[in-house]
Amino acid sequence: MTGTEFSVRDPDYERRVRESFAAQSFMATLGAEIVALGPGRCDIRMAYAPGLLQQDGFLHAGALATIADSAAGYAAYTLMESGDRVLSVEFKINLVRPAAGEAAVARARVVKPGRTITPCTAEVFAVRDGHETLCAVAQLTMIRIPPDGS
Amino acid sequence: MTGTEFSVRDPDYERRVRESFAAQSFMATLGAEIVALGPGRCDIRMAYAPGLLQQDGFLHAGALATIADSAAGYAAYTLMESGDRVLSVEFKINLVRPAAGEAAVARARVVKPGRTITPCTAEVFAVRDGHETLCAVAQLTMIRIPPDGS
Amino acid sequence: MTGTEFSVRDPDYERRVRESFAAQSFMATLGAEIVALGPGRCDIRMAYAPGLLQQDGFLHAGALATIADSAAGYAAYTLMESGDRVLSVEFKINLVRPAAGEAAVARARVVKPGRTITPCTAEVFAVRDGHETLCAVAQLTMIRIPPDGS
Amino acid sequence: MTGTEFSVRDPDYERRVRESFAAQSFMATLGAEIVALGPGRCDIRMAYAPGLLQQDGFLHAGALATIADSAAGYAAYTLMESGDRVLSVEFKINLVRPAAGEAAVARARVVKPGRTITPCTAEVFAVRDGHETLCAVAQLTMIRIPPDGS
Repeated sequence: MTGTEFSVRDPDYERRVRESFAAQSFMATLGAEIVALGPGRCDIRMAYAPGLLQQDGFLHAGALATIADSAAGYAAYTLMESGDRVLSVEFKINLVRPAAGEAAVARARVVKPGRTITPCTAEVFAVRDGHETLCAVAQLTMIRIPPDGS
Repeated sequence: MTGTEFSVRDPDYERRVRESFAAQSFMATLGAEIVALGPGRCDIRMAYAPGLLQQDGFLHAGALATIADSAAGYAAYTLMESGDRVLSVEFKINLVRPAAGEAAVARARVVKPGRTITPCTAEVFAVRDGHETLCAVAQLTMIRIPPDGS
Repeated sequence: MTGTEFSVRDPDYERRVRESFAAQSFMATLGAEIVALGPGRCDIRMAYAPGLLQQDGFLHAGALATIADSAAGYAAYTLMESGDRVLSVEFKINLVRPAAGEAAVARARVVKPGRTITPCTAEVFAVRDGHETLCAVAQLTMIRIPPDGS
Repeated sequence: MTGTEFSVRDPDYERRVRESFAAQSFMATLGAEIVALGPGRCDIRMAYAPGLLQQDGFLHAGALATIADSAAGYAAYTLMESGDRVLSVEFKINLVRPAAGEAAVARARVVKPGRTITPCTAEVFAVRDGHETLCAVAQLTMIRIPPDGS
């Protein structure tokens, strides 16, 4: 929520995040891409597309949740070590406005990096004519899986 | 989760649910279909597919959340009236096991039907060789939008 | 999350909030008091006390959740109308650090005021020697009950 | 929620749970007691009392959340090992009916025991004249802290 600065343990975190993101085939299905990345933060953008909608023509809550979840996972992953993996323990999302416009962008931030558990928050904005409107807020819990799996 | 029986207000609820489901283009993108429907309950199945995965080759948490969300929305919608609409207020999901196998199925149940708010729960199972393993549990809140939008 | 300004419908909201708060006997049991109040925001402080602890001597997660819930309810209630009531639909809280020190303070903010549903966020800080450390983050959903109960 | 049977690693789990519960001073403040305990499950009962109420005279959502949280923590703790500690990572609760009557009881069940993370669900019932009515459902995530703190 605040402008907290986090320090990374793996200076090569960006390559690690982008390789993992590229391996998430569901991101390609959604047309999602990472548009910002830094220590403890990741933003993912998904263009409005005819195959991503709910019954009223808005972006499906599940699609918004998906980019929030991936963004939070990678926000947490920026602060982990080489060889670590990251998984979602759980997440919760409130849909506060229907998401219309040309795209949605999820901005995830680490709340507190942990040796095992990393809680994150995310805000999802609908983008219309370049203007952003908040359409969802999420709270997410990520877990670090070290190389030995312990 | 229990065997509570709910009575419907709109005997033609199934047509109403299936029309709305058909209008959710994201369900087609996921290859999702309704496999069971009754008063206060809806099950949605999604076949494992190469475009729905996270970085380790399992079904993406967001895809699991999406079918849980739609199933809960339609479970709630079975108990609403003709002319009503349904929207997700919020949902929370715990991922308890990686989802591998040939499909995932979300089974959503209404906890208590409300004039405005309908809380639901859902369990998501991974299906392998016809055997089901629990991979996620969710708790979801739906809202009824009456015809006058009030 | 941001410095959004909300406008009130009931200029006498503070009296209404404080009367409701005074009627919450559980707040007195916790030694909790409102320490800040404004349109769309409410902060509640609870002194560390020997009867509020979990098994390791920290403030119980349930006590932290309670002040977050009340703070969010009253943050939402500041924006409602005279005669309205407010209830919690649901909330979710992540405990990010043990809460030690001389007090805890929950700072709740409205995300978006709604005619029916008002989503809020809250941060809970542990206070030690006047210094605040984040110990929990919450996301909460409040509902307005209008005078006619509809 | 289902009839899953769990096997314990520590046959003396009941003593361990009851000692930890006795150390939670907040349980005494609430007048809460363990009324059932078994592998992967724990029920906690709290009598209705004048100091536990919200503004309309019902049991406060925070008090209901507290017994759900403790019940889930101890449900998870029954399956851990001697020397382990248990903490709440996060929880989410839906309030589905106002809680009136002579008591409330939270019934928590482990969804899946984990080496690190144990997700649980809980149902909270209001008890009136010995009859139980569901008033809240919760989903909770517990973490095992092994003796070496790792």
